[in-house]
Amino acid sequence: MSAHVSPLAPTHVPEMPAIAGVKLATAAAGIRYKGRTDVLLAVMDKGTAVAGVFTQSKCLSAPVEWCRAKLSRGAARALVVNSGNANAFTGKTGRQSTALTAAIAAKAVGCGANEVFLASTGVIGEPLDATKFNGVLGTLAEQAAPGRWMDAARAIMTTDTFPKVATATVKLGNASVTINGMAKGAGMIMPDMATMLAFVFTDAPIASGALQSLLRSGVEDTFNAVTIDGDTSTSDTLLVFATGAAAAHGAPRISRAGDPRLKAFARAFRGVLADLAEQIARDGEGARKLVEIIVEGATSKKSARRIAMSVANSPLVKTAIAGEDANWGRVVMAVGKAGEPADRDRLSISFNGIRVAKSGARDPSYDETEVSNAMKNPKVQIRIALGLGKGRDRVLTCDLTKEYVAINGDYRS
Amino acid sequence: MSAHVSPLAPTHVPEMPAIAGVKLATAAAGIRYKGRTDVLLAVMDKGTAVAGVFTQSKCLSAPVEWCRAKLSRGAARALVVNSGNANAFTGKTGRQSTALTAAIAAKAVGCGANEVFLASTGVIGEPLDATKFNGVLGTLAEQAAPGRWMDAARAIMTTDTFPKVATATVKLGNASVTINGMAKGAGMIMPDMATMLAFVFTDAPIASGALQSLLRSGVEDTFNAVTIDGDTSTSDTLLVFATGAAAAHGAPRISRAGDPRLKAFARAFRGVLADLAEQIARDGEGARKLVEIIVEGATSKKSARRIAMSVANSPLVKTAIAGEDANWGRVVMAVGKAGEPADRDRLSISFNGIRVAKSGARDPSYDETEVSNAMKNPKVQIRIALGLGKGRDRVLTCDLTKEYVAINGDYRS
Repeated sequence: MSAHVSPLAPTHVPEMPAIAGVKLATAAAGIRYKGRTDVLLAVMDKGTAVAGVFTQSKCLSAPVEWCRAKLSRGAARALVVNSGNANAFTGKTGRQSTALTAAIAAKAVGCGANEVFLASTGVIGEPLDATKFNGVLGTLAEQAAPGRWMDAARAIMTTDTFPKVATATVKLGNASVTINGMAKGAGMIMPDMATMLAFVFTDAPIASGALQSLLRSGVEDTFNAVTIDGDTSTSDTLLVFATGAAAAHGAPRISRAGDPRLKAFARAFRGVLADLAEQIARDGEGARKLVEIIVEGATSKKSARRIAMSVANSPLVKTAIAGEDANWGRVVMAVGKAGEPADRDRLSISFNGIRVAKSGARDPSYDETEVSNAMKNPKVQIRIALGLGKGRDRVLTCDLTKEYVAINGDYRS
Repeated sequence: MSAHVSPLAPTHVPEMPAIAGVKLATAAAGIRYKGRTDVLLAVMDKGTAVAGVFTQSKCLSAPVEWCRAKLSRGAARALVVNSGNANAFTGKTGRQSTALTAAIAAKAVGCGANEVFLASTGVIGEPLDATKFNGVLGTLAEQAAPGRWMDAARAIMTTDTFPKVATATVKLGNASVTINGMAKGAGMIMPDMATMLAFVFTDAPIASGALQSLLRSGVEDTFNAVTIDGDTSTSDTLLVFATGAAAAHGAPRISRAGDPRLKAFARAFRGVLADLAEQIARDGEGARKLVEIIVEGATSKKSARRIAMSVANSPLVKTAIAGEDANWGRVVMAVGKAGEPADRDRLSISFNGIRVAKSGARDPSYDETEVSNAMKNPKVQIRIALGLGKGRDRVLTCDLTKEYVAINGDYRS
């Protein structure tokens, strides 16, 4: 958590309504940070369905292993999140501390350990002393209350400079249902099927199988289309909880993702994911520019994604944007190194709507002063037209500044 | 070219002997830099064989296209290198300026344009005015002389902080032959089959086919095992010229790379490539640490290379090293994201010989103070043992500092 708030932080923070069937509480357990909350407990009513997607890292954190193993049951009663220690690469101790945390939470909430979901974020490789949760989780279970969403979003932050929340209210059948989400990001961000920590809650009565399908398709163009530094975390976790409480006021029970009644909900759900994902890019470590990369005319969407990611992760493109330099030569370089079909002589590149290169050479009409002014904007859009096919994709990232290096040069020590 | 010399610059610069059949000259053509040389002309005797490897970028520079097209003839009489302008992504103009440069050089040297090889380095996307070579190349051809290797290495620099040369003398048959090399690097460095600009000259009489085989196998563990920032240039070029002049004092003519008489030469040649490649890592933009990443126990050498590159290109690993932090958690992350077989619970990691992690958890015996002291060394070796198979590889890189961001945040503007 930083004293400075990212200049890209959203100016409007939504009022977060309560979600029927969800109670939240936070505490300062002193896991790593002093003088701030670092534990979140979410308690869900019986009958809550759960879905999740996780990091594709080959070196999973213990909590990711735990959640994966429990997910097949599809039922959740509690979520425990701690910030400050990722409980990753902690071997047998890590697995023990995960099991102990779940047992403590299960006792506090009055549910089975299998219904407890866990997420940890922070330093990798340091053993997490789960006995710190003794007592804390019991107190939290007693204090848990609806609302408190901003407190919850603050408790899961690490190097984030602002809490990230999003909300939507939408009709499901004739009933109104609510979707609330929170996320933490900042660094080690290049999701791969899931990302960082993000938790979404809804009172919609959606069965876990349908929820999982909704989530899988929802992350593809939201969380999976964000990168800060190309570094994929061992702990990326995105969990969705559906309490089903809205069934009491008439929301239909949904068992299939293809159910046509789910259409508006699916759109709103995707909107919440997209909102949270963009906030993660806006709070990239050291970020001063939000960068949107649009690739069109690729041979496929997949190819467009790879090219967009190659540009988004190029240190030379990112430092140029930090320097407010419309250095399209580096964009060409990053397109070229992606290994995807590209024809230099058909390539066009625009920065914030100003075309600087077309047909493989500098656009003769472009005015350096006009582009320089456009680069001063806190949001920079790079549009790359390949002229080969219909593949299109969009990725969000941020610039690479000296502050990123400063933050990560002495984060641990 | 920077006023500060990298702290990792070699303390010993070898005396560069003359190579029979090679003459060099440099000039200040004012292509981009003021008050320094920016053009190199190398004139080779008739009968010089040539081999080359180039960037795998899909957006090749015009000079790379030129060299590729001429390489099949296998004969070279001249090499023109300019720094300051890469002549990449310059469309038709770029091709024209390449052809014009070759024509001017051919006239100056008295050879065919097909025997002229070209390399350009510097800004991408700016048209290169080849008429600047008019006159300059004629004068250079007259002035060209044996020796002058340090001048030549200086003329090809961009953001390099020191000229990079290497030399070896070795027996071929009963004759002594010499290998001289020079390179420039600094940024946009993650070679893929070839890299940045590097030129190697020898008086050994080796036919172009054999030379090409030697080069292909030689780059694999030298230039292709170096990365500064994961950004592959549009201009990477490594050319080797063999004048054959040593035949006059008895060196046998070699036509096959498999010729047993070539063994000592091949080893020396590889040594020159390795030396130049290491110097490129030592002069990575903003570098203060030379980082050697050794991966062993992988399922194959290829898998080991991918894991080593994932670690070498991780901004979080590189910033940690800049901060002298033995942050092995980030190494685990980078191993995990490589997508290659890895078993968290078998992983061991050492920094400069001190094991910090074993069997998937912190090594209980490791002493933080001892590791902290070891990290102050200007060379940091990260050894990763996967415990799966016999695949092993080694990659060189450097740390990521605020200076890298500063250098690249205002290189062009």
